[in-house]
Amino acid sequence: MNQEPIYEGKAKKIFTTQNPDELLVYFKDDATAFNGVKKGTIVNKGMLNNKISTFFFDLLGKNGIPHHFIRMLNDREMLVKKLDILMVEVVVRNIAAGSLAKRIGWEEGRKLPCTVVEMYYKNDELGDPLINAYHIKALNLATDEQIRIMETYALKINDILTDYLKNKKLALIDFKLEFGIHKGEVLLGDEISPDTCRFWDTETGEKLDKDRFRRDLGDVEDAYEEVLFRLTGETVK
Amino acid sequence: MNQEPIYEGKAKKIFTTQNPDELLVYFKDDATAFNGVKKGTIVNKGMLNNKISTFFFDLLGKNGIPHHFIRMLNDREMLVKKLDILMVEVVVRNIAAGSLAKRIGWEEGRKLPCTVVEMYYKNDELGDPLINAYHIKALNLATDEQIRIMETYALKINDILTDYLKNKKLALIDFKLEFGIHKGEVLLGDEISPDTCRFWDTETGEKLDKDRFRRDLGDVEDAYEEVLFRLTGETVK
Repeated sequence: MNQEPIYEGKAKKIFTTQNPDELLVYFKDDATAFNGVKKGTIVNKGMLNNKISTFFFDLLGKNGIPHHFIRMLNDREMLVKKLDILMVEVVVRNIAAGSLAKRIGWEEGRKLPCTVVEMYYKNDELGDPLINAYHIKALNLATDEQIRIMETYALKINDILTDYLKNKKLALIDFKLEFGIHKGEVLLGDEISPDTCRFWDTETGEKLDKDRFRRDLGDVEDAYEEVLFRLTGETVK
Repeated sequence: MNQEPIYEGKAKKIFTTQNPDELLVYFKDDATAFNGVKKGTIVNKGMLNNKISTFFFDLLGKNGIPHHFIRMLNDREMLVKKLDILMVEVVVRNIAAGSLAKRIGWEEGRKLPCTVVEMYYKNDELGDPLINAYHIKALNLATDEQIRIMETYALKINDILTDYLKNKKLALIDFKLEFGIHKGEVLLGDEISPDTCRFWDTETGEKLDKDRFRRDLGDVEDAYEEVLFRLTGETVK
């Protein structure tokens, strides 16, 4: 497959393939939080996130969201369309948690009266600061049209995922998306997993996501396992 | 005038008047910065900001911006229309400085390729965090229509002030606005002064605003004096 590593992030490695329009994504078990200050390993996370993301990209594709995912290659690797990543992280929130709870002074778990979409400047050195459409334009991170498309997709993705997860007894608290350009088109990129979403059990409120790692709640692997199991009935142990 | 104090802020005191639709604003010499952590006094600041704000409200009114200012009563007091203040601070920026320079990692003084409008949650306890239109809606701080009006006025005010100040050899780097509702209408409120704007001499780059206090640059009173003098030819000494 003529694989050359071209990028290594906190949770994934990216390789070239023989097709210049396609890349290989390898999912690692490494976990980081608080902009890399906290580091650790979550056993099997790479495998679980690869499978969970595969499931979600399939679901979103069937529901009209264009994405970079082509197919799963093996337990830890997926093939994706090559993107020029837009350096904007789009966060969608239904329930106050994490940085939003701090920002607006609400207790975690309080339902937001309306869905909140936020844009962050994807920049580790600056700590991924919140920005708005004016900043994005000034920084030349995306065009007005690309911002509009990301926002529209983000809200639609929220509807699709929230509806789907309800039947799996998972509340979708919030999630982060990344987008990129492939042949002139805005596509959903990155991953959709317990690393990038907050999932709470709808009955017990139990956290089934990376907050178990961030906050030392224990049973981190089990939480990721549980999400995959609820989605596909599959286990990786 | 049947004055009863109803509010004391960091830089102003507000009193009722015999007319329930009107308030009296008293401008203090007190100066604070960094959300009240730094405190001091700028001699004559109250007088200077009262006169400078009077000048700017007049200028903006003549150019079609509806505002709360009715008239100056004396050196330190103005009469204004009573507002239900919208708890949003609107900041307009032409040149990177202060918190924006930090947020996006640009050196202070670099010209922004486009004017940037920011909205902050007016909340001392939370440190006035940056927010967007979704947060404003979720927090019920303003309606979509009120947000649209504030943004439109903010950009128009920027054009009016920038143009005017150019002839006075003052560059308008950025400024903060507050708005409120009076009889159902969105009006510009608060003050427009070196406390709420960054003014730099267009030739020397010298700061003629509250940054002289924030950053201990000295000659704070002289800077405020200089702004009034350039606007009206008046001195208060």
